[in-house]
Formats: sequence, C-alpha cells, structure tokens
Amino acid sequence: MKLWDKGFSVNQQIENFTVGKDRELDGYLAKYDMLASKAQANMLTKKGLLSEEENQSLQKALDQLLEKESKGEFFIDEGFEDMHSKIEAELIKTCGDAGKKIHTARSRNDQVLVAIQLFHKDYLEQVMVKIKELSSILLEKAKEHKDDLLPGYTHFQAAMPSSFGLWFSAYAENLISDAAFLQAAYTVADQNPLGSGAGFGTSFDIDRDQTTQELGFNSMAVSSVGAQMLRGKTEKAVAMAMAMLGGTLSKLSYDLVMYNSQDMGFVKLPNEMTTGSSIMPHKKNPDVFELTRAHCNRIQALPNDVMLCINNLPSGYHRDFQILKEILIEPMLQFQNILDILIFALPQLEIKQDYMNQAKYDSIYTVENINKKIQEGVPFRDAYRDVGLSVEDGSYEPLKSFKTQHVGSIHDLGLDRIHAKLDALKLN
Amino acid sequence: MKLWDKGFSVNQQIENFTVGKDRELDGYLAKYDMLASKAQANMLTKKGLLSEEENQSLQKALDQLLEKESKGEFFIDEGFEDMHSKIEAELIKTCGDAGKKIHTARSRNDQVLVAIQLFHKDYLEQVMVKIKELSSILLEKAKEHKDDLLPGYTHFQAAMPSSFGLWFSAYAENLISDAAFLQAAYTVADQNPLGSGAGFGTSFDIDRDQTTQELGFNSMAVSSVGAQMLRGKTEKAVAMAMAMLGGTLSKLSYDLVMYNSQDMGFVKLPNEMTTGSSIMPHKKNPDVFELTRAHCNRIQALPNDVMLCINNLPSGYHRDFQILKEILIEPMLQFQNILDILIFALPQLEIKQDYMNQAKYDSIYTVENINKKIQEGVPFRDAYRDVGLSVEDGSYEPLKSFKTQHVGSIHDLGLDRIHAKLDALKLN
Amino acid sequence: MKLWDKGFSVNQQIENFTVGKDRELDGYLAKYDMLASKAQANMLTKKGLLSEEENQSLQKALDQLLEKESKGEFFIDEGFEDMHSKIEAELIKTCGDAGKKIHTARSRNDQVLVAIQLFHKDYLEQVMVKIKELSSILLEKAKEHKDDLLPGYTHFQAAMPSSFGLWFSAYAENLISDAAFLQAAYTVADQNPLGSGAGFGTSFDIDRDQTTQELGFNSMAVSSVGAQMLRGKTEKAVAMAMAMLGGTLSKLSYDLVMYNSQDMGFVKLPNEMTTGSSIMPHKKNPDVFELTRAHCNRIQALPNDVMLCINNLPSGYHRDFQILKEILIEPMLQFQNILDILIFALPQLEIKQDYMNQAKYDSIYTVENINKKIQEGVPFRDAYRDVGLSVEDGSYEPLKSFKTQHVGSIHDLGLDRIHAKLDALKLN
Amino acid sequence: MKLWDKGFSVNQQIENFTVGKDRELDGYLAKYDMLASKAQANMLTKKGLLSEEENQSLQKALDQLLEKESKGEFFIDEGFEDMHSKIEAELIKTCGDAGKKIHTARSRNDQVLVAIQLFHKDYLEQVMVKIKELSSILLEKAKEHKDDLLPGYTHFQAAMPSSFGLWFSAYAENLISDAAFLQAAYTVADQNPLGSGAGFGTSFDIDRDQTTQELGFNSMAVSSVGAQMLRGKTEKAVAMAMAMLGGTLSKLSYDLVMYNSQDMGFVKLPNEMTTGSSIMPHKKNPDVFELTRAHCNRIQALPNDVMLCINNLPSGYHRDFQILKEILIEPMLQFQNILDILIFALPQLEIKQDYMNQAKYDSIYTVENINKKIQEGVPFRDAYRDVGLSVEDGSYEPLKSFKTQHVGSIHDLGLDRIHAKLDALKLN
Repeated sequence: MKLWDKGFSVNQQIENFTVGKDRELDGYLAKYDMLASKAQANMLTKKGLLSEEENQSLQKALDQLLEKESKGEFFIDEGFEDMHSKIEAELIKTCGDAGKKIHTARSRNDQVLVAIQLFHKDYLEQVMVKIKELSSILLEKAKEHKDDLLPGYTHFQAAMPSSFGLWFSAYAENLISDAAFLQAAYTVADQNPLGSGAGFGTSFDIDRDQTTQELGFNSMAVSSVGAQMLRGKTEKAVAMAMAMLGGTLSKLSYDLVMYNSQDMGFVKLPNEMTTGSSIMPHKKNPDVFELTRAHCNRIQALPNDVMLCINNLPSGYHRDFQILKEILIEPMLQFQNILDILIFALPQLEIKQDYMNQAKYDSIYTVENINKKIQEGVPFRDAYRDVGLSVEDGSYEPLKSFKTQHVGSIHDLGLDRIHAKLDALKLN
Repeated sequence: MKLWDKGFSVNQQIENFTVGKDRELDGYLAKYDMLASKAQANMLTKKGLLSEEENQSLQKALDQLLEKESKGEFFIDEGFEDMHSKIEAELIKTCGDAGKKIHTARSRNDQVLVAIQLFHKDYLEQVMVKIKELSSILLEKAKEHKDDLLPGYTHFQAAMPSSFGLWFSAYAENLISDAAFLQAAYTVADQNPLGSGAGFGTSFDIDRDQTTQELGFNSMAVSSVGAQMLRGKTEKAVAMAMAMLGGTLSKLSYDLVMYNSQDMGFVKLPNEMTTGSSIMPHKKNPDVFELTRAHCNRIQALPNDVMLCINNLPSGYHRDFQILKEILIEPMLQFQNILDILIFALPQLEIKQDYMNQAKYDSIYTVENINKKIQEGVPFRDAYRDVGLSVEDGSYEPLKSFKTQHVGSIHDLGLDRIHAKLDALKLN
Repeated sequence: MKLWDKGFSVNQQIENFTVGKDRELDGYLAKYDMLASKAQANMLTKKGLLSEEENQSLQKALDQLLEKESKGEFFIDEGFEDMHSKIEAELIKTCGDAGKKIHTARSRNDQVLVAIQLFHKDYLEQVMVKIKELSSILLEKAKEHKDDLLPGYTHFQAAMPSSFGLWFSAYAENLISDAAFLQAAYTVADQNPLGSGAGFGTSFDIDRDQTTQELGFNSMAVSSVGAQMLRGKTEKAVAMAMAMLGGTLSKLSYDLVMYNSQDMGFVKLPNEMTTGSSIMPHKKNPDVFELTRAHCNRIQALPNDVMLCINNLPSGYHRDFQILKEILIEPMLQFQNILDILIFALPQLEIKQDYMNQAKYDSIYTVENINKKIQEGVPFRDAYRDVGLSVEDGSYEPLKSFKTQHVGSIHDLGLDRIHAKLDALKLN
Repeated sequence: MKLWDKGFSVNQQIENFTVGKDRELDGYLAKYDMLASKAQANMLTKKGLLSEEENQSLQKALDQLLEKESKGEFFIDEGFEDMHSKIEAELIKTCGDAGKKIHTARSRNDQVLVAIQLFHKDYLEQVMVKIKELSSILLEKAKEHKDDLLPGYTHFQAAMPSSFGLWFSAYAENLISDAAFLQAAYTVADQNPLGSGAGFGTSFDIDRDQTTQELGFNSMAVSSVGAQMLRGKTEKAVAMAMAMLGGTLSKLSYDLVMYNSQDMGFVKLPNEMTTGSSIMPHKKNPDVFELTRAHCNRIQALPNDVMLCINNLPSGYHRDFQILKEILIEPMLQFQNILDILIFALPQLEIKQDYMNQAKYDSIYTVENINKKIQEGVPFRDAYRDVGLSVEDGSYEPLKSFKTQHVGSIHDLGLDRIHAKLDALKLN
C-alpha cells in the first residue's frame, strides 16, 4: 500500500505525485485542446504572428491528431506530464518551428481553461440529449400506465389514491425543471477564456473575437482575471447541475427499490436489473437500482467536493485546481452511464396488478368518501365523522369509483402540457 | 442547557419540538399564504364552491391581514402552531363559515408549497436586483481604477502585472454568469403547485390555470405528485444559486483581506469596516470582510445541508421538510444583508499608491521584457535567456511601459461588453 | 426582509453585522468565562501580578456573577458586543482597578478559547450521560422484546427472521461504539489554551500549569500557536462526534417511521409522538420521529458546515471563527433535546403482534429450512433446490421453530457483553 | 464518452455496472478475506462442521494464496465479479468439497464486512505510524528553529512576534490531538462481525469468540443486526479521522505556500517540491504543497461523501454500500502518499534569514514595548498611548530583545511535554 517504498527515486515519486491522474484523465480533454489550437493558429495567422504556410502545416497536423483521437489512437506516453505537452511535442515533430510558435500569446493556463470549457459544453449537450430522451420515455410510461393506481404515501403512510400515470409524469416534469441547471451551467461554460493568458492577458496583439467565434462560444470571458476565475467555477456549476438531476434520479430509484419489496410489490423490475440470493431462493434484489441510487447520491456530493478544494483560495491560478479532474471526470462518465441504464430499463418496467385490492389500502379512499359527501351537501365535519365512524364499526366501503377532473390529477394527467415543457428545453 | 428539564409537561415539550421555529420563521411566509388564499377563494367562487358573497368577505379579510403584515403587525401567537392555522383562525373569526370553506379542495401540503414557491420567487427577484446593483458598482470601480496596477498572482506568487480595472471587472463578470443560477432556481420556483392537494390531487373540480395566472406563475407544476416533489427541490435550487454567488463574494472578500495586510498593502478598507486591536496599536483588522467571507462560506454549505435532510426520502411528503425553513431562512436574510454591506462598502474602497514600486515586484515585468524582445524578432528561447541573465547579474530593468491591446487586458478592459452582459440579465 | 433599510445608521448596521448573534449565543458561554477568569486571577495573584486583596475582590464578584448566571439572571445588554465585555464591565464596576488588571497577560483570543474549550467539555459530558442512559434503555427493550420476531431486510427485501431483541441491542451497541468519537472530541477539548494570548504567548511571567489544574484540564495546549489552532478544530471535533451519533439515531428513526407504515405495521408509536390528519381519518403520522430523523441529518451536515468556514485559512486567528457559534450552538442544544425525546419515547414503544403470520413473510424462513436439511446431512445444493421447488409448488412450510445458538443471534442476544461495553464507557 | 455504445451486449453492460471497480479495488481487501477464511475454517473445524483433514487442506491453500498476494501475484480475472468469488473458486479448485464447505454458516455479507474491518484496522495502524513519525520530525524542526522568529498573524495582519519553534511544534501537537480520531475510528473497526451472517445471525452452532480471538479483534460486534450496521459506519469513522488530520495538514501546506511568496519570503522549499514557470524566469511555484493542500481538502470531503450515500437508508444491507470502496480507497492511498511526501520534505525545509528586519514588521513589537512599560509600573493605558504616539512621530524603536518565560512561548517551547503526548499515543 505504500506508494513511497516502491523503489522509485524521490524525483520520480514527486513527479508521479504532481502528474497525478493527468495522463489518464487528459484523454477526455485532448480533443478540445486540438480544436482550440486550430482556432489559435488561425487567429495568430490573421494577426501576422504565424505565416499562412506555418498555419497550413499546423492545421493539417492538428486534423491528423483529431482523427487519431476520434479513433481512440491518441495516447499520452509516460514521458509527458499531460496531453498539452504531448500535443505540443507532436506539433513540433511534424511542423518544426511552427509547432513552437503556436504557443505565442498563449499561456498554459488559458490553454487548459479553453479545453475545459469546451469539454464541459460538450458534456452538458450530451447530458441534455439523454435527459430529454429519458423524460420522453417517462411520459410514454405515464400514458401507458395512466389507469394503474397505487397508494399515494405521505409520512410513509398510505394516504390517498395515486397512479403510475402521476408518478411517471412527476419524474419527467421534475427532470425538465432540473434541466434549467444544465442551462445555467452551460451559460458559465459557454464563455471563451482563450487569450486571457495566465489570467492577466498578454501584450501581444491578439483577436479574441475570432477564437470566440471559431470555437462556437456564445461570448468571451472578457476580463482576463475573471476568465481565470472560471477555473473551478465551471466545474462547480456542472457539478451542481448534475446534483439537481441526480437528486431526482436517486429518488426515482429509491421508490422503485421500495415498490419492489414484498411489503409493497407494485412493480416488477426487468430481470437484468435484479439479482438472486445464494441462500434465499425467494429474493429478487434490485441491485441495479440500488447502485443507481448510490451513484446519484455520490454525484450529489460533488458540488461540495469541488467547493472544499477551491474555497478560500484568493483569485489567480493555484495548482489545487488540477485535482478537480480527479474529482469530477469519473463521476461525470458514470452519470452518462446511469442515464443510459435508465433509458434502457424504464421501458421494460412492469406494473403488477391486484395489490390495490388489499384491505390495508382500503382506507386510502376515505378522502374520496368524504369529498363525495361534501359535494352532496354534507358539511365537512359531519362527513369526516360519518366516514370515521364507518371505518371503526367495519361498515366502511371504499369509494373506488371516484373521478378527478383537474389538470395534474389521476384522470387528467395533462401530459400535453409536460410535453410542451419538454419541447421547449434547450441549452442556449 | 436542558430544554427537557424546564418544567414543561411532556406534551408541551413534544409540541415545542414539533412546532420548532415555525412561529418565528413563518412570519416570512405569511404574506404569500394570504396572497395564495385570495387566489384560491377567487377560483373556488368561479367554480361555484364559494358564493360571491363569501368571496367578498374573504377577499376583504385577507386584504386586511395583508395590510397588517406589511406594517409588521401580524403575529403568530403561542396558541397556533404555524401561520397557516393563525390565518385560518382569523378568517373564521371574521368571515364565519366562509373562513372554513376556503380550505375546500386544498390540503395543508399544497397550501404550504404555494407559499414557499412565492416566497422564493420574491427572494430571487430581490437578490437579482442587488446583484445587478453590485455588479454595476464593480464596473464603476473598474473604470475608476483602470490605471491602478497590482501584481497578478498565480500559486500565491507575484507573476505578472495586473490591474484593479481587471480585478473589479472580473468580479462583476463572474457575478453576472453566476446569476444564471438565479434564473435556474427561478425556473424551479416559478411553477404553481396549488391544487395538487397532499400530492395526489383532489376530486373537486378546480381550475388550476386560474390560480396559476392570478398568482403570476409562469407555469403550473402539472403532475400533483411532481408538484409535491418540489418541496425540498426549490429550496435546494435556491441554495445552489446562493452558493454560486457566495463563492464569488467569498473570494472577493478573501482578496481584500489579503490586500489589506502589511505584506501587500494594496487597499485601504473603509474605516467602518475595520477594527483596531486593544493591545496592538498598529493593526487595522478587516473584520467585516472576514465575516462576509465566513457567511458566504456558510452559504456555500447550504446545498449540502438541504441534501442531507431530503436525500434518500422516497416521493411524497415527509415532515422532515419542515426543518428546511430553519436551515435556510436565516442565511437567506443574512445573504441580502451581505449584499447590502458590499453595495455600501465597495464604493468607498480606496486603492493605495506606490506599492508597485517595491523591488520585490520588479520581476513581474520579465514577461513584458521577453514579449518585447520577441516582437522585435528575437527568438523566444534567446529572449528568455537574456532576460533571465539580466535578472541574475542585476542589470535587469523592468519594462513598466508595456501596452496591451486585446479585449479583456489591462489597457482594453472591454467594460462595454460586460455592461451588455449585465443589461441582458433577467429572471425569466 | 431588508435589514439594511430599517432606518439604522450605517455604523449601527455594521455593528449589528459584526456582533451577529453573539449577544444571544454568548449566554451559553458566559459561565465558562467566569470560571476561567477566576483561575486567571488566582494565577496572577500567585505570580504577584495581582494583590491578594484584589484577587479576593475579583473572586467574590465572579462568584456573584456565577450565581446570577445559574439563576438565568445574567444578560448581555445591547451596549456590549459580547459576554466578555459585559463581564469585564461588571468586574470594573464592582472591583475598580482590579477589574481592569485581570486582563493582564491575557488576550481576548485565549479568553474566548478557554471558554469554548470548557463549554465543549461540559457539553460532551452531558451528551455522554444521555447516550449511556439511552443505550441502557435500548438494552432493556431488547431484553423485553427478545421473543418478538420481525423480518430482517436486505435490499429492502424481507430476507430472514430477525428480532426486536437484535434490533434494539444493535442500536445500543452502535451508540456505544459511536461514543468513541465523544471521547476523541473530548481529548481535543480537554487542553488548556489559557496563556497562549493572541496565539503567540506573552512576555509576562505566567504559570500555565496552575490554570490547567484549577480548571480541570487534562493537559495544556502547549504551543501558543497550536493552542490558537484549536479554534475551529474543537468545534469540528464535536461536530464529528455528534455526526456519528446522529447517523445512528437517524437510522433508528427511519426504521421506526417505516415500521409504523400500514405496509409493515410492526410497531405502535407512543400517542404523543404521532399526529392525525385533518382529512384522512385513518392516518397516524410519525411526525416526531420524522423530525428526529431530520434534525439528526442536519447534525450530520455540521462537520462540513464547519469545514467550509475554516478550511483554507492559514494559521492564526481570523474573525471567521466567530460564526462557528451560529453554526453549532443551536443544533447542539437541539441534539440534547432529541436525546431527551428518545429517552422519553422508547420505553413507551409497543411492538404489535401477528404481523409475522402474514403469508408474505413465510419465505423468510427458507434459509432455516435449508439449514435444517444441511444439518441433517443433505448437501447444500440439494437442500436449496428442494426448498425452492416446495416454494414453487405451494407445498412449502416455513420452519418457524428454528433455534439459534451463537452469541449475537436471536436466541442468544449476548446482552451482558453489550452491557459490559456500556459500563466501560468513559470520557477520559 | 458513451460507455453504453461500446458494442457490449446489454447484459455485459449491466454486469460491468454492477461489478463497478470491484475487480480493481478488491485487490486491497483480498488479503483480509484470506485471513478471515483461515479463522472461519479453524472455527468450523472446532465445531465439527469441517473435518481436520478438510481444514488442513484449506489452511494450506489459503497460505499459498496469501503468499501469492504478498508478492503481488494475486489477480481477480475478468470471469469473477469480486475477490471473494475468485478466492472461493481457487479453494474449490485446490480443496474440492472443502472449498465449498468453508462458506457454511457464513454469508457474503459478514464475509465482506470482516475483511473491511481488518483492512481498516491495518490502515489505521499504518497511518498512526506515519503520523507519529511526522510529528517527531516537526518537533525536531521546532528545536532546530527555535530561534528563528517570524511574524505572528491574526486577521492576515502581522500582529506579534512568533517563531518557527512555536510554528513547527504547533503542528506536531495538533496532529497528536487529531490522532484521538484515529483511535476512535479504530475502536469502531476493532469489532468482529464474522458470524453475523446476512445481518441476522445463523442457526448453525458457531463460536464467534474463537474467530474474534484468532483475528485479533478487541471485541465482537455482538448483535448481528448491529454488526451489519457497521457497514458504512466504519468507513465514515475512518473518513472522519482522515478529515481531522487532513485539516491540519492542509493548513500547514497553506502556510508554507504563503510563506514561500515574494511578499513574505520566510521559507525556502525543497527544490524537488517547486516548479519554475515557462515564461516567468523569476518564479518558484510551490506545486507539491498546493497539491498536498488540495488532496487534504478532498480528504476532508470524504465524510460527507460517505454520508450522502448511506444516510436515510434503514437498517440492513443495501447494495449502495459497494460504492464506498470507490469513494474511499483511492484517497486513503493518496493520504499515505501525502504523509510520505511530508516526511520526506519537511526535514529539508529551510528558513530564510533577515526577513524580520523589514520595516513593515517593526510594529509587531509594539506589544512587547507596551508590556515592558507595564512591567516597569506604567499603567496600561499610558503605556499604550506612549507607544502609539512614538509610532506616529517616528520615534518608535521596536523592542526586539524581549524574553518570554512561560511554557508554550517563544523562549520556552515546552517540547518535552509535547514529546510526552506523542509517546503516549497508541491505537488501543
């Protein structure tokens, strides 16, 4: 367990420590550095800091690297501390002096930052697509199961009749409103920091509007000091967006794990999503949904993880920011994975039948009995007392034939309205 | 310290425990319950569940309560467990049976929820106003101090020349992008839950569109189950928005506390914002900014406080939600206070002079010396070596006359662009 | 809601902000400042920095203040920013110059610190007493209900037979091991910082051993710099101890809330601990246990609340520490309250009968059927298959007459061993 | 980035998801499962559930696996979901039926739990050794630099003279008191859960005392339900212990990063611990200490990460617990790494000279000037005024020749007392 005693020299150990997981994690960022380098080279050329010829050489080399990357063939060898130095070395190897000149008017800080901004933008776009797909599936299921009642719980007590139509559409609608946080995070990520140098700009005459436009940023992070302050902030913003969605999906999983219990028994989970027990033949454990819940809860811890690292650091770059990659990238990938699993699993979810006929749920209709009496003109207090007495003396008959009429109730789910909210979702 | 031993009866102690701080904190919510009750009564009247006469009586009584509230004369006496029961009692006292009927087709759950949504909407609007004012002040200061240089730090090391123009505008621009989270939280809060009952709708024939419109909500929280799931979610959303802004203001305060030290000495804090020491005549402690920082850090802990309470609760109401008021309301008020303090303090902030002439900062100009050589045609490596050697042999002369040209740099702050971002900010 | 606009002058508002909740919260600390002042005066007298006469006057005045405090008659008037200045003023009023001299060789920093250490020591002692009482009650209940079976759940699935004997004793044993964190926090708090001045000692010739001994500290916080670093650390330590215990009690409450549901129905909660529903005559909501759970979850957030405030502050005092009182003191009191409520409620908890005879729980005995066959010589795989088949074809008969023999199982709870662990608990 | 689209079948993807990082992380736990299996086999043999011959075969096979593990030659192939199934398969391959029988009276739950308890015990022991070594180094440095003064800061303001003797010994003493949390966590981990089965015991006649003794546990986790509740609790306990130590080391790193700045310039960091800048020849960035700080801050987030996953889960096993390994193991290893780095780096830390002669620090001696006057009989107020005036009119001469006399002050560090605290540290 002692990393220190593994026979490495001190310098090697220190290097390993400072490099951390960059070689592994930078694989996810390399593409964006290549894209930003192309924009940088084009801009330098326009401003006369690179020749047309140099630029053509660089563009070609970067296109080749991008192709390699897209095929999964771009690796960061041990000799390099991160992907930036690897890409730089490749460019120098291929383009000679032009490879060195591309770093003109750029610092490692804004180079990293612009890749991070682009990476997060791309990530948020992908998540938005999946959230829309998932919400759409939930609305389909709501429609499919609009007549499947289930007990509605408050205080863990079966309280009133609810339905799987309400339940499925609830999660769709919640995800849609959570998605406002994807938009907010996107707003933060959608600002171009390239040109801010080490956080204080540069005395070279550069054109930040051009790189902003070429890279597809909505706006420039204007103040160079402010641009540098996006490091950590964008990560915090993305973590918060994930934590909003994660909270909703954790709750959905919690419901399903409970609904799968023998005590409730409302749903049948897809076979692939459950496991048996080696010593208890009767059990169907909802492992996949427990793990989904757990990962979504871990995701909810991310904003705090980020904050504890970056909080109480004054403005300006600190090496501390490096480990945000370790904190975030793996859970970010896991989150996509979870969305895929839910997109796969939910269409297969089956609703069991007959559980509503159990005597223990009869009492959830008392509200309906009371409401009917009120609508017939009986004062509330009398209605409440009569129904209460009938429950006590055993003469109570649950009013299962109630009919709701308002939008968002069992018999009028208002799915078209939720669909409209879904259709209106966009990132910018 | 033992609350239990204070001579109260058990029942009294249990009641105190369940009431918690509701009597105190509900004062902030009462106004919104009154407004929602007015809308509810109007809707019930339209649907024939209240007579015109009853409604007139209720509207009048509620208007009187609203007036009392606005004068600070509405109190929740000890006999009532919360403001809802107090308001109800007032209505029954004034309007008789109509006061009882207003609760038709409404449950305590959606009654509380709609007040919470309205309260948070109002809060977010107030914060947005203050954030815009504060950003505007920061941009004023940026303009005022555009020629006041300061060392730009990375790794806590004085690295390159920066300016208070860049510094002030950085915080303005960061607040503006943080404000995207105010918008996201607003999106969550701006959904009408009234009519969702205890989370499963009602069999009364109600018109949720009418209350949505009368209360000024952008949309309805359609699914009754989903509407109930907003409890906790809206609070989490608002906490996240505050945590984004709080992070920025904590960093600003941290900078100022350091800049006020004898080691840096860049700023002079307003006198009201500092305290002396009883035994050290030389000290000017930046207490107000330390406390601002601390409160902003506490605010950053709020999303996690909320999540630990509501996480892993299945769908449906739980009494746990009650304590979210205890967690959030006081820090929410404190945050407004902090914004007011910064709006008051920042215009008075003075920048000291002459600190840039200290020899310890000469080296931050080496980048400029090197860049100048490069622009004169010297290859980077040679330029770097030459400047490095001049530093070593003592012949180095800092190039203080450098001139930057790009947007977001010392000599072109791009304030108009940040102003444009500020002007575009709105909540919905 | 705008504190700023309430017609106070700026200076008044700033003062309100810096004073914060000190006037209110310092009431809990005042006693300890008085005790520490007595020790300080005695020590100064021994070292010749106060005369015997001055000391007698001070001791008498401090005793009177202590008596006032114990009667709840010591208040911090508006004119004073905290209890220290109030006590000082009282001493000067009563003892004249001696009142001023008591501050010799003491700074406000170590004065506050020593009170905070004593306060936390006292608090931890009180909590330990209650935890021992609560554990003892749980062990009583375990004994009382050793024959009351309940389904043991894994993955929310009824899995195997368990018992309330195991369940109650589980929580006792867990609390006892949690209490190791009370001890750890006590170790941190049980160090005397008095004499460390503002964190760098004093050039007066003082005797720190004497105050250490007189105040009952186990040891001195030797390094003056290190003593000052206890500010925040002791609070963090206490928060962690509470979070360990809080986690256990939150889980206990969660179980009870679920066990109280119609779906399980294992327990009957004390009447005072449940509430009815205004519109659902059948419900018995477990509000008190939901609130207990929520408060325990809030308590689990405290370590993080503390850390976000104090983290990334270099060594030395910062005004930020002040708000730790706001973060902690109220939840600390609430936690004692919760312990009192559980100590009151648990003895009254009733276990319902007959729920184990429901067909849905028959399958939890399959493990016993299989084990019996194995003990009779049938290979595991055959036993598993046979029992599985009998479940399928309806011929399965649950083996309810199983008998366990090992320590910590249903029929041998090992309560004496847990009692021994409980008896061994002490704070230092 | 889409794990889902990689051409795996659905079942493969689900399996990958449920296996998670177990194959990788279980490598750290395998040893402890082997040791516990040896104890289990011995106990089963004593109770007649295994023959002597079967046991001999198992003991031999397990010894061979342990040897393989110690050489780093034990791997968990893709065919196995975790190390437990791999070890089981190995035992069946080598020992035939005996390999199957070892699982008698054991469930996967207590099998995992006992390995986790042993793993954490071992880890805590290793950390304790390193903490003692590090504290010892800090005390050495304190002695070495007892005459090297530095400004003592409060509110980020240079306040009074301090010394590196006080500074180094402060961190030693703080680590020593933090170590009480290592002890507390050890108390939680040092309880044997083996025999608790799936959390509800077993009907086999087993001897839990024997495995407790053979595995070196201090006590048994008696209640089977309580034993299972240790899952998550032990992890939380260890995370808290790390968070206490991590907080101290983060602060130490923060101090060093600041002391290394041009503005302070008190220390010279070891060369291996700093990096230069590619464009700023004058900079020596303290990367290693920034990363140490960041990792220690991440470590402080761990208790919350754990709590968000396990909180609000009722008693009994949930699959959620699996991901605690993902959350904790890597940071646990990193923490050991950090301790090694500090143990390596701190002895090389050099204190610069002459910085105390800068005029900006003259004023920190005013306290000494005042104290001297007081000791000469001048009343405090007069002394304060005189010194204040001398500062103003420029006639002030700092009293650098002050002499402190009390334990824990500059001229009497009391290192022997801190050494005594260090020597008294032990885990149980």
